[in-house]
Amino acid sequence: MTSSFLISGPNTNYFLLMKHPFKTIPGSVTAPQGFLASGVFCDIKRLGTGKGSNKGKKRDLGLIVSETPASVAGMFTTNQVCAAPVKVCAERIKKGIARAVVVNSGNANACTGKKGLSDAKAMTALLAKSLKLSAAEIFVASTGRIGVTMPMENIARGIAEASTLLNHSEENGHHVAEAIMTSDTRPKEVAVEFMMDGKPVRIGGTCKGAGMIQPGMSPTGARPASVPLHATMLCFVTTDAAVEKKALDKALLQAVALSFNRITVDGDMSTNDTVLVLANGKSGTKTIRNGSALEKFQAALTHVCLELAKMIVRDGEGVSRFVTVRVDGARNASDADAAARAVANSSLVKTSWFGGDPNWGRILDAIGYSAATVVEEKVDVAYSPSGSKKLLYSLKRGQPTSASFKSLCEVVAQKEFDLHINLNIGKGSAVIYSCDLTEDYVDFNKGDVTDPSTLGG
Amino acid sequence: MTSSFLISGPNTNYFLLMKHPFKTIPGSVTAPQGFLASGVFCDIKRLGTGKGSNKGKKRDLGLIVSETPASVAGMFTTNQVCAAPVKVCAERIKKGIARAVVVNSGNANACTGKKGLSDAKAMTALLAKSLKLSAAEIFVASTGRIGVTMPMENIARGIAEASTLLNHSEENGHHVAEAIMTSDTRPKEVAVEFMMDGKPVRIGGTCKGAGMIQPGMSPTGARPASVPLHATMLCFVTTDAAVEKKALDKALLQAVALSFNRITVDGDMSTNDTVLVLANGKSGTKTIRNGSALEKFQAALTHVCLELAKMIVRDGEGVSRFVTVRVDGARNASDADAAARAVANSSLVKTSWFGGDPNWGRILDAIGYSAATVVEEKVDVAYSPSGSKKLLYSLKRGQPTSASFKSLCEVVAQKEFDLHINLNIGKGSAVIYSCDLTEDYVDFNKGDVTDPSTLGG
Repeated sequence: MTSSFLISGPNTNYFLLMKHPFKTIPGSVTAPQGFLASGVFCDIKRLGTGKGSNKGKKRDLGLIVSETPASVAGMFTTNQVCAAPVKVCAERIKKGIARAVVVNSGNANACTGKKGLSDAKAMTALLAKSLKLSAAEIFVASTGRIGVTMPMENIARGIAEASTLLNHSEENGHHVAEAIMTSDTRPKEVAVEFMMDGKPVRIGGTCKGAGMIQPGMSPTGARPASVPLHATMLCFVTTDAAVEKKALDKALLQAVALSFNRITVDGDMSTNDTVLVLANGKSGTKTIRNGSALEKFQAALTHVCLELAKMIVRDGEGVSRFVTVRVDGARNASDADAAARAVANSSLVKTSWFGGDPNWGRILDAIGYSAATVVEEKVDVAYSPSGSKKLLYSLKRGQPTSASFKSLCEVVAQKEFDLHINLNIGKGSAVIYSCDLTEDYVDFNKGDVTDPSTLGG
Repeated sequence: MTSSFLISGPNTNYFLLMKHPFKTIPGSVTAPQGFLASGVFCDIKRLGTGKGSNKGKKRDLGLIVSETPASVAGMFTTNQVCAAPVKVCAERIKKGIARAVVVNSGNANACTGKKGLSDAKAMTALLAKSLKLSAAEIFVASTGRIGVTMPMENIARGIAEASTLLNHSEENGHHVAEAIMTSDTRPKEVAVEFMMDGKPVRIGGTCKGAGMIQPGMSPTGARPASVPLHATMLCFVTTDAAVEKKALDKALLQAVALSFNRITVDGDMSTNDTVLVLANGKSGTKTIRNGSALEKFQAALTHVCLELAKMIVRDGEGVSRFVTVRVDGARNASDADAAARAVANSSLVKTSWFGGDPNWGRILDAIGYSAATVVEEKVDVAYSPSGSKKLLYSLKRGQPTSASFKSLCEVVAQKEFDLHINLNIGKGSAVIYSCDLTEDYVDFNKGDVTDPSTLGG
């Protein structure tokens, strides 16, 4: 059986949100009260990865600082080859208190041995010194090239400069969103506001990720039993809600299960995947511990994580189509997840999407080799415009329908569409957010051996 | 644990072949005594798949006939969505006697329901009538488009014509090799001869496969427990050795474990994968049941299957590089297999090979998320020219070596090279034969929605 933090019913959050409305507001990590941010260029990206849209003087180091100690929860890659900053965070998260996060792009600080670990700690120590905080309450994250030691002189210069630039502005939150980009073509930000105890509470977040994307995160980085796991994605969420550590852990577990752990770009799980949420209580509401208050917070947090997770897939390397793969009627949730992932990661299915081909043969093939129990004669396959309930069936009970090829092509020709698979043998459901596999993806990732700085590891 | 028919030590056959020499001879399925073959064009390919090198009047139906009843063994896809001809073969194989095989390309007869099943049986009945044989001793295989019913008028015409053309010639064997091609760019044939009881014994075979390739076959098509499976490949082997059914089953099980079940092109396991071996005893040797005789036969059969399996990968859709992924030092064979498959199927690793990039970061990432136990600080990664024992290490005990980037690039720039991963924590070994992921693969498989005949399903 797959662990609960990887699997969850697809509609859980939809119903919660209906019950607990919120509004979307501008900004990201600085939208909640009491959070400062900054982002600078300190020449890590040029040293680390020279390729793509980020060549040149793009920001590559960011800071997020809470004015007061915040409770913190985290989810980390379950890859056994895990980066130094992940190790540092997974250790510090236990205490549950954070004051700041330092993050860089251009170098993943992964596969860098003992030096990497001491560099990751040194990054937090540098920031601690600069801001007169305790290093144990500072978290660190990195993304970029694997297997190259961190350019610590540049990092030190960057942390010093970024420390002087910290402020509450929306613009500064945006600088962090820029500083964490690697092959991302655009920054990813979202913020929401809802009422609690008669006061406005805000949650804001930013994330990055475009390749090496199929996160399978757990709260400790420990691997669940028998999970077919296969992103660097980083996500930082801030909130001025007051949330008890245990309740924050629980809320993040559920939010990630319904968002980041449900996306795939290329089926490769990264060494660096990290989600951190900091809750500093500056809204002045009562501390959230359980019950309806936690449910309300949970719904909004999940929404923030899901919106950010979808942005990652839409901006995936070479992606031209965003596809929501929904499996219903599986024997159980684990089977539904396995079937949806098999389809969402099949090279043949993904290339057919690129071609705008409403193929069902490759889809049946993929669910057939998945770990899910499948009875060919019971399977329905349908397409719909993204989010629409108007399903156009191409296959019913294992047999092609009379739907015209042209009408099916019209749905699949869209930039975004939904694929609905019903196995019709049980009540298990799962959703995976995926994308097509394009020539641009291959071209981008084949690297350029004449320029080793474009190559990972 | 993975079943024994999927996992086996990589060097098993090497040592057997040292002990039991054989010579390679021209030809394929008609090389052994007492086998007849023919291949014709009956317009299935044009009806089924219009794309690629096979457009136009290429052969699309083949026959292989033994002059006398032969013992037969088979291995079939473990995909739950399995084609009608596979169902027919898996049932008939139990009796263990075959007189003929009818095979077509252009239409997979998969996802075709009850009509498909009756069509598959009708194909054998048509041949039985034409040759005055029992349909129960005739086997059938199909490859091509999924989800379209068989053009039975064309098939009947083809079987009638092919029946009149049957003969022992090498050329006619070649016609079968041509008739089974789909996206293959070249026919695949091999034959060997060795001495037994003072008499020459021959094994000949042909196969096809270029996309939807990661076979995971079992003798019954039944799925082993907890195997991460993910080809259409078809393979037909003939021999004039006399082999008892049980011994033939055992020999094929081992041969496929070391060959077809160890290859991947795109990680997608097909609905139609089939390997059949027919042994008619025409060489006049004693019946092989066990001991040294079986060992000798086993070694030669494995060699034939492995050569054919490698031809599939080399001719995989869009393939520009053939890579042998060898994992040693794993906790056990199952772990070694999991690590090797994770690397061999990683989109990021495969695109790096396309670029000629001696990347190790993506390789560490892939083994790290595999089901194998991996300790980063113990991992060695090396490259060598294909088959060479001269290993050039890029990583030792988790740390980059001083090997120059240029020298590593020189190895990976070759059309064929070996990747050696040592986990250094146990004695488990595995080999997977893989290839790069190229823009041509994506271009080929994206289909052409203006020509639905190019699309699967």
